[in-house]
Amino acid sequence: LSSEALAKDDFLRMTDRSPATTVGQAGESALIDRIRRRTGAAAPWITIGIGDDAAAIAPDRNRQIIVTTDSLVEDVHFRRAWTAPRAIGHKALAVNLSDLAAMGATPRACLLSLVMPEALPLDEFDELIDGLASLAAASGAPLAGGNLTRSPGPLVIDVTAVGSAHPRRTLTRGGGRPGDLLFVSGRLGGAAAGLGMLEAGERRDALDDSERRCLERFEMPAPRLRLGHVAAFSRAVTACIDLSDGLADAVRQIAAASGTGADVEAGSLPIEEGSVRWANRSGRDGLMSALAGGEDYELLFAVSPRRRRSFLAAARRCPDVPVTHIGQLTQDGEPALVSAAGRLPLPAGFRHF
Amino acid sequence: LSSEALAKDDFLRMTDRSPATTVGQAGESALIDRIRRRTGAAAPWITIGIGDDAAAIAPDRNRQIIVTTDSLVEDVHFRRAWTAPRAIGHKALAVNLSDLAAMGATPRACLLSLVMPEALPLDEFDELIDGLASLAAASGAPLAGGNLTRSPGPLVIDVTAVGSAHPRRTLTRGGGRPGDLLFVSGRLGGAAAGLGMLEAGERRDALDDSERRCLERFEMPAPRLRLGHVAAFSRAVTACIDLSDGLADAVRQIAAASGTGADVEAGSLPIEEGSVRWANRSGRDGLMSALAGGEDYELLFAVSPRRRRSFLAAARRCPDVPVTHIGQLTQDGEPALVSAAGRLPLPAGFRHF
Repeated sequence: LSSEALAKDDFLRMTDRSPATTVGQAGESALIDRIRRRTGAAAPWITIGIGDDAAAIAPDRNRQIIVTTDSLVEDVHFRRAWTAPRAIGHKALAVNLSDLAAMGATPRACLLSLVMPEALPLDEFDELIDGLASLAAASGAPLAGGNLTRSPGPLVIDVTAVGSAHPRRTLTRGGGRPGDLLFVSGRLGGAAAGLGMLEAGERRDALDDSERRCLERFEMPAPRLRLGHVAAFSRAVTACIDLSDGLADAVRQIAAASGTGADVEAGSLPIEEGSVRWANRSGRDGLMSALAGGEDYELLFAVSPRRRRSFLAAARRCPDVPVTHIGQLTQDGEPALVSAAGRLPLPAGFRHF
Repeated sequence: LSSEALAKDDFLRMTDRSPATTVGQAGESALIDRIRRRTGAAAPWITIGIGDDAAAIAPDRNRQIIVTTDSLVEDVHFRRAWTAPRAIGHKALAVNLSDLAAMGATPRACLLSLVMPEALPLDEFDELIDGLASLAAASGAPLAGGNLTRSPGPLVIDVTAVGSAHPRRTLTRGGGRPGDLLFVSGRLGGAAAGLGMLEAGERRDALDDSERRCLERFEMPAPRLRLGHVAAFSRAVTACIDLSDGLADAVRQIAAASGTGADVEAGSLPIEEGSVRWANRSGRDGLMSALAGGEDYELLFAVSPRRRRSFLAAARRCPDVPVTHIGQLTQDGEPALVSAAGRLPLPAGFRHF
């Protein structure tokens, strides 16, 4: 905030000829150049990219604009001692693309607002950008702009993802009706198990493949973009949400937004294999982890029972991501977990506050 | 990051019946409800607003999407002890709208990603949202979504602004040509003087009106949206940028992006009256403050000399924001400050790193 301090920094920068090793030493315009070199050529629909006051994106015909923002905060969502910068950059974008997937949207661009401690090593900065930029390019959402700021505390990575969706094929949380079937993609509880392994200080080389997959689920989630897109065009889906805060929370959100109740069948949940293994080894509750553990970034769908086949046919177009029927929306009442032991209220999800 | 700590928090929350006074006590969904109550009805073009995985915005016919993101960081851009939360919320959006103004864009929506210490008082949260939401409503850019996260350190307010602009009437930094006239809007140096007053611990009631205006320039900047828009449609402007990092930096950026040099006439600079007064009182350099002091959020235009009249006619449609001719783009060379004393290189602007 103090201009005297800045002037002194500038002076040191000009007189010190040793190569920069931290973002503070490199300076803003050198950092923007490094980002430019790492992002490659922009897509043709990015009409104004990195380096102007704002980015410009050509609109898609007959589509509405879908936009979302989410941040990863050091020591809240990740620790730099545990997770490689490349994974942090990947995940900061992935959590946003997952929100686009839940709307059935096609990604078009992303923006990065980076709040960094001046001591952040330049090579960590480069790797973080690489992780974000490679997922951006692979997803059709090139990095088109953003902002760099100094942080007096944690590293904060705030990403905005911009996409497009057909107005009558945009998925929301609120269209579910009683009787709709609940389907979830992929396998659950892997990310929570991966976080548990990091917290417990497990050595990566002491884990088996199924457990290492959990670590990867936590660190490098794969947004279900294609599944969200084909599901939206199946006309079978009445509501959709991504599992950022756990399955139980996702079911509660869809039920609340749709004005319904919900039953989830405990026996039907597709639990990640390594998560079960880790739960057994570490004395944790694997079912609870699959229900309440956040960050799986799978999709939960409410599907009209009459259009169940259309939904399944669409989902088969993503053969590497299974979908599993796990319950249904009900007339009303508290969302419940149903098992041989009876009905229990669904647990709450991850709370950010 | 630890799920055990969260479970304990939840337990305390359920057993403690006293009304919440901090954002951490209130919990995420109560905070989202408070935001909803403060933002009022969304505009008709916001087809999906607060509360879903992403926001949806109806596209404007024959317009491209303009999108920008910028953050305010506690103890870097503001101090909570100095500035009211309402002003902080206003400014977090204003700096983004200023970027839209520099593109000639019309604002359509904004998103808020808030990274907050749990101890942030609820009434400060409410006021911050009020400040942002009232500027959002007044600018035609309703708050349409976002994200709330816990911060282990400073308060970080990251805003994304979404707008639209005609593809052939979008202003950039890079279209200037040698001989183009440089015009700047408003008065310069006010924000830097306002920051100086806060740093010096000046009592507000000891300031005269012109000085208090400088404080307001620093704390509650008014984005020049209408001026940017009419200037873009005048077809006279070849390049434009906002003065987030000071006039000298803005001139350098336009010259660099346009591949030109630039001369700024020292005697022509429209310096804010209170800034001169404060500089005299405090022994500072008022001209330097007008040149290098950031955060004035005025617009700098390069104008084709043949279309100077069209530009001035357009600018007269914003009678409360004067424009002043301050120099011109030149063939090449280092951007210079020209005065009776000769030519000096323009100083550097505010550096974020």
